[in-house]
Amino acid sequence: MAGGICAPKGYVSAAIPCGIKKPGSKKKDLALVYSEVPAAAAGVFTTNKVKAAPVKVSAAHLRSGDIRAVIANSGNANACTGCTGIEHAKQMTADVAEALGLVETQVLVCSTGIIGVPMPMERIRNKIPKLVQGLSRKEGAAAARAIMTSDTKSKSIGVRVKIGKTPVHIGAMAKGAGMICPNMATMLCVVTTDARIEKEELKRTAKEATERSFNRITVDGDMSTNDTVFVLANGLAGNRSIRNGSKASRDFREALVYVMDEMARAIVKDGERVTKFVEVHVRGAASFQDAQKVAEAVANSSLVKCSWNGEDPNWGRIMDVVGYAGARVREELIDIFFDGLVAARNGMASDTPIDELKRVVSEPELRVVIDLHLGDADHTVFTTDLSEGYVAFNRMEYAQKIGS
Amino acid sequence: MAGGICAPKGYVSAAIPCGIKKPGSKKKDLALVYSEVPAAAAGVFTTNKVKAAPVKVSAAHLRSGDIRAVIANSGNANACTGCTGIEHAKQMTADVAEALGLVETQVLVCSTGIIGVPMPMERIRNKIPKLVQGLSRKEGAAAARAIMTSDTKSKSIGVRVKIGKTPVHIGAMAKGAGMICPNMATMLCVVTTDARIEKEELKRTAKEATERSFNRITVDGDMSTNDTVFVLANGLAGNRSIRNGSKASRDFREALVYVMDEMARAIVKDGERVTKFVEVHVRGAASFQDAQKVAEAVANSSLVKCSWNGEDPNWGRIMDVVGYAGARVREELIDIFFDGLVAARNGMASDTPIDELKRVVSEPELRVVIDLHLGDADHTVFTTDLSEGYVAFNRMEYAQKIGS
Repeated sequence: MAGGICAPKGYVSAAIPCGIKKPGSKKKDLALVYSEVPAAAAGVFTTNKVKAAPVKVSAAHLRSGDIRAVIANSGNANACTGCTGIEHAKQMTADVAEALGLVETQVLVCSTGIIGVPMPMERIRNKIPKLVQGLSRKEGAAAARAIMTSDTKSKSIGVRVKIGKTPVHIGAMAKGAGMICPNMATMLCVVTTDARIEKEELKRTAKEATERSFNRITVDGDMSTNDTVFVLANGLAGNRSIRNGSKASRDFREALVYVMDEMARAIVKDGERVTKFVEVHVRGAASFQDAQKVAEAVANSSLVKCSWNGEDPNWGRIMDVVGYAGARVREELIDIFFDGLVAARNGMASDTPIDELKRVVSEPELRVVIDLHLGDADHTVFTTDLSEGYVAFNRMEYAQKIGS
Repeated sequence: MAGGICAPKGYVSAAIPCGIKKPGSKKKDLALVYSEVPAAAAGVFTTNKVKAAPVKVSAAHLRSGDIRAVIANSGNANACTGCTGIEHAKQMTADVAEALGLVETQVLVCSTGIIGVPMPMERIRNKIPKLVQGLSRKEGAAAARAIMTSDTKSKSIGVRVKIGKTPVHIGAMAKGAGMICPNMATMLCVVTTDARIEKEELKRTAKEATERSFNRITVDGDMSTNDTVFVLANGLAGNRSIRNGSKASRDFREALVYVMDEMARAIVKDGERVTKFVEVHVRGAASFQDAQKVAEAVANSSLVKCSWNGEDPNWGRIMDVVGYAGARVREELIDIFFDGLVAARNGMASDTPIDELKRVVSEPELRVVIDLHLGDADHTVFTTDLSEGYVAFNRMEYAQKIGS
């Protein structure tokens, strides 16, 4: 079976080089996903108040009805580009619509890359007819590669689940790397499914699945202007339409969470120049908000992340963050575990030998559990260390781009 | 005139090596400040809910009356050390009191260094009599060096101002380096003055001056368990006692702000392995809270700090942070300036040539102004870049210490 976004019935895709970042480059940087029949669609976007033009245009198009296609590019975020940026994003959807015989509101658009630089529209517009000609069930992997920026691996998945007695497929492609933070990331994800589902139910489910996946990851605490999750559902699987509150609804939601969670973890593992995948689990909090505050503060602390990079079981820095996270805490009740080994008990050093703690924090994956012993609420965030490579990688971007 | 904490009349100090961090080390790591007459005193402490033992003990001692001495150590924070830690902090004040013929509540204590490791009390207690014997007007500089941790330069200042017609002196020593964040820092500061001032007025003034200095700096966004500012005022200058609302009160407050601001800037400039001093000034905000949220979010953004390290005039990343800072903003009104050169106008790239922008961001000091054009409120934060050196420096601490 075709993988990724072409796993479900009735979807084709294509990718092409436009030289968006660098004229003449052979890297594919423009991708198209097309549903052969009208699809119900939902979008979940960045909560940043500075929203990129494609976010604004897609949000408007989602309000007007069925969707048939998604155009996505890497190399330029089309953010902080004013009215011209809006016109450019609209133009991209209009050109795709024209080539496919659609109306422009049936096309969604998403972009990722540098902020504040106008889109090279001529190079893009010239290539859209050829992009459309290349649509095929075999181009899912190429599309996933085309949306990569600083990602080192492309991210896609295709799964099959039964909704009632009907096999249904869900596929996805995503990109991540920098500016990864709840809520969402410089993160694009396009999910396709052949499930039949009511539009309002799809919106609810997409939002909840995003909450339980992409909104639990952070690399650097920076929330982007462009974060976008699209979910298209074209109904070709032939299942009875999924309604709110049904078993089918729960099954579909769990499958969607699974797909998005796999993409979210892949994004964290591929964070810019990071060396470690860390799960921060806070339990025993007095409220969900408290659990979330602590988990996110620990996951975003530069000093804690540096210690993970150094494979140093520095539980004291975690205690420090727990104290300033803004949650109800009592120092003398706090336990901290590294991969099941207790590092701090009742807010103080445990008697676990330091060599054992060092051994577990030197693994490429680490689970940190913080038990506040105040209540029943818990929350989990997936994150990374902070590496010298991350800093080196992110030193230069704008001047290089503008200078080129 | 003697500098630093010994600049005001009636103060002597001393410093001695105890091997707190490493037994046998010759580095002075224990400092004492002593006022020859009883002093009014004020303390401003970390707002972290995980507070180090010396913070708790000093807060209690400040409630009980006049203060005569401050004992301060580097190499161990005495944080996350439970009841034993409290006993140790009390013991330090009791030993100093005994050697000086005081009661223990007349002695304040502050500590900085690693979290979660018991204080090496025997080594400290053995040295306190000798420390007291060394008290001298000439040891201010040695005391300032003794409280350094990862600081590369000692930080002290002595100033003379007129309160009415009476010359008054203010001196200070401080240490900073890592875990520097509003509110406060792994930051200790001891201020001495020979001004005569009522205790309640001193408390108010110390709090306001801290708000206008140390609470405006951030290196890494991590607020420590130990942050402490002490202000001792022994009245030997002979001025009429400073009262709330008087001109003398305003003059003294401005002088105290000056001293603390100098210390705060010195701390930022000496941040762990940083290369750039950056002033982030937000103006035109709809409220002070909004101005503060934006300034602090920009000053703590890893991606923005990396771009400063790379001397890249990446205003787009700043726009991104302004958008997620939680303040009221309108993208199309935002202007961003680097050292007076406009980088973004109305939320979009300005026409300032990139080479001019690159030139200003390559200076060792940079002023970033963000104008939200929504109101009259403004706020300033002083911060640094994020360097590869910072990460390398902060990778290992706990295991090394415990292993030693």
